[in-house]
Amino acid sequence: MSTLTVTNSIIAQQELSRRLARRGKTIAIVPTMGALHEGHLSLIRYGLKKADVVVTTIFVNPTQFAPQEDLNRYPRDPQGDLKKIKQAGGQVVFMPSPKEMYPEAFETYVSVENLTRTLEGAARPTHFRGVTTIVAKLFNMVRPDIALFGMKDYQQAMVLKRMTTDLNWPIEFVIRPTIREKDGLALSSRNRFLSPDLRRQAPALYRSLKAARQMVRDGQTDASAVEAEMRRIIGQGAPVAVIDYIAFTEMESLKPVTVIGKDTVASLAARFGTVRLIDNLKIA
Amino acid sequence: MSTLTVTNSIIAQQELSRRLARRGKTIAIVPTMGALHEGHLSLIRYGLKKADVVVTTIFVNPTQFAPQEDLNRYPRDPQGDLKKIKQAGGQVVFMPSPKEMYPEAFETYVSVENLTRTLEGAARPTHFRGVTTIVAKLFNMVRPDIALFGMKDYQQAMVLKRMTTDLNWPIEFVIRPTIREKDGLALSSRNRFLSPDLRRQAPALYRSLKAARQMVRDGQTDASAVEAEMRRIIGQGAPVAVIDYIAFTEMESLKPVTVIGKDTVASLAARFGTVRLIDNLKIA
Repeated sequence: MSTLTVTNSIIAQQELSRRLARRGKTIAIVPTMGALHEGHLSLIRYGLKKADVVVTTIFVNPTQFAPQEDLNRYPRDPQGDLKKIKQAGGQVVFMPSPKEMYPEAFETYVSVENLTRTLEGAARPTHFRGVTTIVAKLFNMVRPDIALFGMKDYQQAMVLKRMTTDLNWPIEFVIRPTIREKDGLALSSRNRFLSPDLRRQAPALYRSLKAARQMVRDGQTDASAVEAEMRRIIGQGAPVAVIDYIAFTEMESLKPVTVIGKDTVASLAARFGTVRLIDNLKIA
Repeated sequence: MSTLTVTNSIIAQQELSRRLARRGKTIAIVPTMGALHEGHLSLIRYGLKKADVVVTTIFVNPTQFAPQEDLNRYPRDPQGDLKKIKQAGGQVVFMPSPKEMYPEAFETYVSVENLTRTLEGAARPTHFRGVTTIVAKLFNMVRPDIALFGMKDYQQAMVLKRMTTDLNWPIEFVIRPTIREKDGLALSSRNRFLSPDLRRQAPALYRSLKAARQMVRDGQTDASAVEAEMRRIIGQGAPVAVIDYIAFTEMESLKPVTVIGKDTVASLAARFGTVRLIDNLKIA
């Protein structure tokens, strides 16, 4: 496939996936909400190394937004997205309509229970149910052999990995590193909403995470001491930031850690005006 | 395949299904809890007409039983089951272990919301969540092209059909008629627990359903009049029976019907001593 194939209906994607499977082709899926940045494109490029065909899905999923959240102002740029996917070498783009994805009688949800109660899930109680449900649907439409997600959305990656394991999709689940700007800010479709001043302050988040990692490398194991230093760094570099949480958790289980040991992830969420940013780093 | 292949692990079944798919073979799934009777066998035989290979799954699913329910005394007869499946022409039996199906960290559930709140779901609030979750898992392990269920478990069939549609498995969902004893009692693995006296009374359930259908054919449209006649017939023929419910619902939506029109199903549940029986009939 040298051209970009765009599928707009579920049946068209299912038939394309069936044809590919019959021809012995392996499929990688990169689920996105569009407004693609280098983080998404790096997943597409990695997918091309692991599978014959990369299917990028673009769908701004309403069920993962709460009523007061930013569904309607979530950035959309389908033409730009198609161009970027083609340049990255992606062969298929699946862009279904909300109406086809969630017909009127729709009432089935996939839920991961414990992993979704902390961190992002604590503040957004129905968010992950929307995420797991849409990804379950996409898995059944695209039938990938491999699924690619970014570590930027740390909890999402762990929740979806748990779902894939628990419900036994025969899909290799791959989590790839966060892609960052030169100054360390994690790429996010929401970064475009930062004013120049907020944009200048935002890298303090990653600086605090790197400092946390360095403290642990230097022998610090007390999570509260690390958190205090992170708060100091953010307070100094990003005085506008309102921190929602700073958390230290065991990588896969998301269990809170007070004494930092193996496989600890530091994660945080902070509001910069109306823009909420998240980031994380494996610090041990 | 002329011999019976038994798979005991998830990975073995997934590899078998992958091999079959690669050879262009279509797969039908007949999910069961074992203790097979003619109802199950009729599904296997029908599956053989529609697909190249029928995979019968045998798994007494703990998550669909509440703590006080009859999980431990649910009948089990693996050797008899294998013999019956082979005689019916089934080629593959998948018998996974509870430990592999639900490892310790398991915490993902599939839920159909509204359809599960009435009828059986009203009395058994977590029952259908267990059913939908196990069938979702089996779909991903067996990867069938077609799934076969019996109308005896009317609500279960509608809930699973909804799940299959909502989550977009590319599976043809087929519901087959209830198989009955000569005197009309719907086949069920639980019938073996009926004492001879209870067994003699049990056919009153189906007689009441047939009478309901006849009343509607004769022009009756008032559900409460039909229900009264059903209660009279059951009271007379099965004085021991304690009726849990008699319901009239629109076939697919399970919405209650007071004026009987098109696609109405009469369904009921009644306790005969410790044995709870269900049955249903499309009466319009």
